[in-house]
Amino acid sequence: MTTENSQPGLVIVPEDVCKKVIDRASAFTAVESVFAAMAKGDAYNFPVIREAIGYADALYGFKSGFDRAGMALGVKSGGYWPGNAEKGLTNHQSTIFLFDPDTGKLTALVGGNYLTAVRTAASCAVSIAHLARKDAKTLGIIGAGHQASFQLRAAAEQRQFEKIVAWNKSPERLDSLAAVAADLGLPFESLDREQVAAQSDVIITITSAHEALLLNDWIRPGTHIACMGTDTRGKQEVDAQLFATASVFTDEVAQSISIGEAQHAVDQGLLTQDDITPIGDVINGVDGGRTSAEQITLFDGTGVGLQDLAVATTAVELAVAKGLATSVAL
Amino acid sequence: MTTENSQPGLVIVPEDVCKKVIDRASAFTAVESVFAAMAKGDAYNFPVIREAIGYADALYGFKSGFDRAGMALGVKSGGYWPGNAEKGLTNHQSTIFLFDPDTGKLTALVGGNYLTAVRTAASCAVSIAHLARKDAKTLGIIGAGHQASFQLRAAAEQRQFEKIVAWNKSPERLDSLAAVAADLGLPFESLDREQVAAQSDVIITITSAHEALLLNDWIRPGTHIACMGTDTRGKQEVDAQLFATASVFTDEVAQSISIGEAQHAVDQGLLTQDDITPIGDVINGVDGGRTSAEQITLFDGTGVGLQDLAVATTAVELAVAKGLATSVAL
Repeated sequence: MTTENSQPGLVIVPEDVCKKVIDRASAFTAVESVFAAMAKGDAYNFPVIREAIGYADALYGFKSGFDRAGMALGVKSGGYWPGNAEKGLTNHQSTIFLFDPDTGKLTALVGGNYLTAVRTAASCAVSIAHLARKDAKTLGIIGAGHQASFQLRAAAEQRQFEKIVAWNKSPERLDSLAAVAADLGLPFESLDREQVAAQSDVIITITSAHEALLLNDWIRPGTHIACMGTDTRGKQEVDAQLFATASVFTDEVAQSISIGEAQHAVDQGLLTQDDITPIGDVINGVDGGRTSAEQITLFDGTGVGLQDLAVATTAVELAVAKGLATSVAL
Repeated sequence: MTTENSQPGLVIVPEDVCKKVIDRASAFTAVESVFAAMAKGDAYNFPVIREAIGYADALYGFKSGFDRAGMALGVKSGGYWPGNAEKGLTNHQSTIFLFDPDTGKLTALVGGNYLTAVRTAASCAVSIAHLARKDAKTLGIIGAGHQASFQLRAAAEQRQFEKIVAWNKSPERLDSLAAVAADLGLPFESLDREQVAAQSDVIITITSAHEALLLNDWIRPGTHIACMGTDTRGKQEVDAQLFATASVFTDEVAQSISIGEAQHAVDQGLLTQDDITPIGDVINGVDGGRTSAEQITLFDGTGVGLQDLAVATTAVELAVAKGLATSVAL
């Protein structure tokens, strides 16, 4: 379908084109495929670079990798600029660069802001698709920032949910989630954290918290929890004890135990890396995933560079096929 | 939500434009300035990523950093594809990406192949300008690959050289250096390595050797040696003992002792990182550099990301000023 290799020069897919060509279904497929490739050993992430540059309070760095199955080689570069909102810009800024694995030539430059949001939502959705109970009815969301709406829309497609319940530190920000729920035709309720846990069959945490927002004792048997917020040392969203109670899955084990939600349980000796299953093993049928209706499953979604490369590769293919990509000589 | 699309677009400076706008003088100034900023603590390189990707025998990775003085933030990405030559492509392939330190937005994409060659030549030239004897007459070159001609041209401008002598493992490849010497109006002679050392006032090593090509005893008092080839663990161009004899300078101490030419002397306990002076200290007048006509000076040029960012920043400025840059929406 793609004629990328026969095109002269560099393909450019800007943010607005990414929004046109990548829907939730294509992001889901791209992320599910690369998780499968990672678990098979066909794809691996390179070390993450993340630097506080000592200017503008910015965090800047790189996530990168190579997927031999999908023939995706490249890097997402960018970071977090906390002063951007005042300037009318997104605080998270990133761009994805794809290279030809056969020659090392730069082949594509893809806007990374929207794709980061959809690939993170897709990761959570993949975990729900493979690990949540089929009869899950209530979806709980902890956190109501920019990313939470993406998570809600992608998660809502995975089961026949009948209700959305949510908590946020600033309750007034729940309005955006309530609007998404209304758009989905689902009732929405603002609850305290313990009540969110008491009512939910699936819970998504998507915060930048540095302490447990959900306690182990609050979680009902049969719940699936996707922890999507912790991506650095020191962040935490759920009780470390929950890792002893739940069956634990992740995108990448090495990242889960170092900068993911599992870091605290590992620090406390509650689990080791051998207790954590790559979600790709479930996708590939190597691991059974959920094996009972009572089992609590926990997905530690840390976010890996290969997810970015996977959705960016799809974005390039679709943009070229639809005539929406720009091509420049390099 | 976002006004990204109304912002100024991305500046693209392709390889052919880089060749038009960056001459040896502008590369020299850019590299000298960033070495000075590094030594003052105004600029630093991030950790280098370098991966053998297990496909096409390729080495792929990133060199990156932030120069607060020059307001350059970004990364050079690419690597070494040994099969490229058969396809009519350069084996070394790289692209440089510049980001706005105030917002994190991608501002420029610059072809990195030619710039890597000229920034490496400039680094060596900066070391000759600041460390070689003023009365140096004979320039010796060890190595005759693609990069050697760049080194020769840049070095030749730093002193009133009267002769070029050179050695290469495959002597027939010396023709390209002989042609450059003829172009410069200088006599050229092919010699064995010991004779190169015996005749030269300045020696440049630019090989991918894994053993000492120049012995300590061969080097005359007063010589300046620029070791430009070693950029990874295991490579070696000169006798480790030379590091005990010479005054040692480098672009970046941390890289010199780990993947630079100094690695072997450090491994053998012949010097420590405290014995190595950043060339920026000499540029800034903090270190006296050469203090006698008999002193042997050695520059370990390892190649840092900030050099790439510095010449790329200059390339963007000149290309925009001359109307040669392309701009695209992102």
